[in-house]
Amino acid sequence: MNIEMIRAAAQRAAGTVRRTPLLSSPFLDTIAGRRVFVKAECFQHTGSFKFRGGWSALTGLKPQKGVLAYSSGNHAQGVAAAAAAHGLPAVILMPADAPRLKIENTKTLGAEVLIFDRKTENREEIGEALTQERDLTLIRPFDEPFVIAGQGTTGLEIAEQAREAGIEKAQILVPCGGGGLTSGIALALAEDAPNLKVRTVEPEGFDDVARSIRSGKRETNASAVGSVADAILTPSPGELTFPIIAKHCDSGLVVSDEDCLRALALAFQRLKVVIEPGGAAALAAALFHPDKVSGKDVIVVASGGNIDADMFQTALRTLE
Amino acid sequence: MNIEMIRAAAQRAAGTVRRTPLLSSPFLDTIAGRRVFVKAECFQHTGSFKFRGGWSALTGLKPQKGVLAYSSGNHAQGVAAAAAAHGLPAVILMPADAPRLKIENTKTLGAEVLIFDRKTENREEIGEALTQERDLTLIRPFDEPFVIAGQGTTGLEIAEQAREAGIEKAQILVPCGGGGLTSGIALALAEDAPNLKVRTVEPEGFDDVARSIRSGKRETNASAVGSVADAILTPSPGELTFPIIAKHCDSGLVVSDEDCLRALALAFQRLKVVIEPGGAAALAAALFHPDKVSGKDVIVVASGGNIDADMFQTALRTLE
Repeated sequence: MNIEMIRAAAQRAAGTVRRTPLLSSPFLDTIAGRRVFVKAECFQHTGSFKFRGGWSALTGLKPQKGVLAYSSGNHAQGVAAAAAAHGLPAVILMPADAPRLKIENTKTLGAEVLIFDRKTENREEIGEALTQERDLTLIRPFDEPFVIAGQGTTGLEIAEQAREAGIEKAQILVPCGGGGLTSGIALALAEDAPNLKVRTVEPEGFDDVARSIRSGKRETNASAVGSVADAILTPSPGELTFPIIAKHCDSGLVVSDEDCLRALALAFQRLKVVIEPGGAAALAAALFHPDKVSGKDVIVVASGGNIDADMFQTALRTLE
Repeated sequence: MNIEMIRAAAQRAAGTVRRTPLLSSPFLDTIAGRRVFVKAECFQHTGSFKFRGGWSALTGLKPQKGVLAYSSGNHAQGVAAAAAAHGLPAVILMPADAPRLKIENTKTLGAEVLIFDRKTENREEIGEALTQERDLTLIRPFDEPFVIAGQGTTGLEIAEQAREAGIEKAQILVPCGGGGLTSGIALALAEDAPNLKVRTVEPEGFDDVARSIRSGKRETNASAVGSVADAILTPSPGELTFPIIAKHCDSGLVVSDEDCLRALALAFQRLKVVIEPGGAAALAAALFHPDKVSGKDVIVVASGGNIDADMFQTALRTLE
């Protein structure tokens, strides 16, 4: 993996992938005690950054017969939309407890959705078997160079937008699951804006990446379920992503489910933007754990906005 | 009023007023039966387009001692923020039934808020008296050339963004209260993009502008209260705004409260954006009254996003 792969992904994405805005509000700055800038990937096609990786993989791997992906929902939609745009069938393995909206959207985008049980079945095994059987190209959610390169285009934009906003030096907080987005952004910034330092944010009990950064080897979570932040619940950092994270990222941050819900409610109120719980983890760290962050400015990635209405209502009640 | 005043307002706004994005979703296109583009003014400073007019008035009228405005909330915040940025005191007259969030934000932005009763008191009279008493400069919400010019900068952006999006000809639907935003956009487009034709959208029972366009003279609403679309409930089109609307706009559209709530719920789900009921009126017309609109593309202005959490929850329940 290198910056040239990210620049190439950005070229393949031109005219298709959206350049998402950097949002801010004086009300949030006051809460955080510093300027907070929110890279709003919820406005990306399919409602999350995952379309970047999906598009990069489709245009880079150039599958012939069709694609297969396993995903709790955002990678599913990203790959489904990219495959549909290329006129290719997509088969997506989704866990039974994925948000309803994500499952429905993936189907509406034209994909064949197969449901598995996150607790008893192994999605990698089912996926490998199906790719053989149906001659499909597997698009891994994070351990795939073209996917990392696609997510890294977010970092190229952050470098540009930080310059435009007059941000010289800052920590960049990124909600982290398997590490595709984090490693892509970290690679891009190491080259384009070395004063912007990436840090991961994870839910309590699912801090495999923070522990891996500390120990220097890939650690695993005890459980696969049990947080509202469904988008970033992965068992451990990836084989490809972890060495990049270990090299470029500072220590990882951890937030509670309650932090995520309160952060997305404040984003509703102050930024007029819809963020899903996992996507709000980085904003939650900036707002509610300001002592763990340093510098006069912070940039947080809001990685997705695919949240069901009932979960959103639960979050809004934290404002009362 | 002319386009040069709008261009001058845009120059004074450069570097301060945000260029808001044009959002879209294939899911909404399917519902509307044509491509729908949403000019998201909810991302403007203070959560609505009103900051454009407030900033234009502060930089154009150049008040010395302080400013006064009357407003249900969006003009209040727009003027309060612009005055604070100029280091000037702002006194704002707000109706008792204004959304709580709007009243609180106006106070937090540093303004002195005075509450009046929309049913029994005349805000214009109270306002004129206070400006005399305290030597303040009145900033009218729509019947003020600098305010119309500021709102018109939205139209300059729409003309540019329509070109970028490959939209050659379209109707531009604008939520309409007193007509400041509508007349400003109509003036800008008449010059910069004459193939983009403005139409007003109002709540049922508050269709003074639609009736005025039909009759050719300023008509009045029977009631001042009774719709969720608080941002666009005004008794009649303005003295300055109506002649511009009469000259440049096609027939007005009308939507129900239910339409507005359903539209903002779909904007939550599909665009990841927070729109208030009045601000969603134009989107509601595009989605639920497609037979009243013509052309293969439509642009709707989402004029603001200042909605209380409980009203938003009411809207989300329409998705069930």
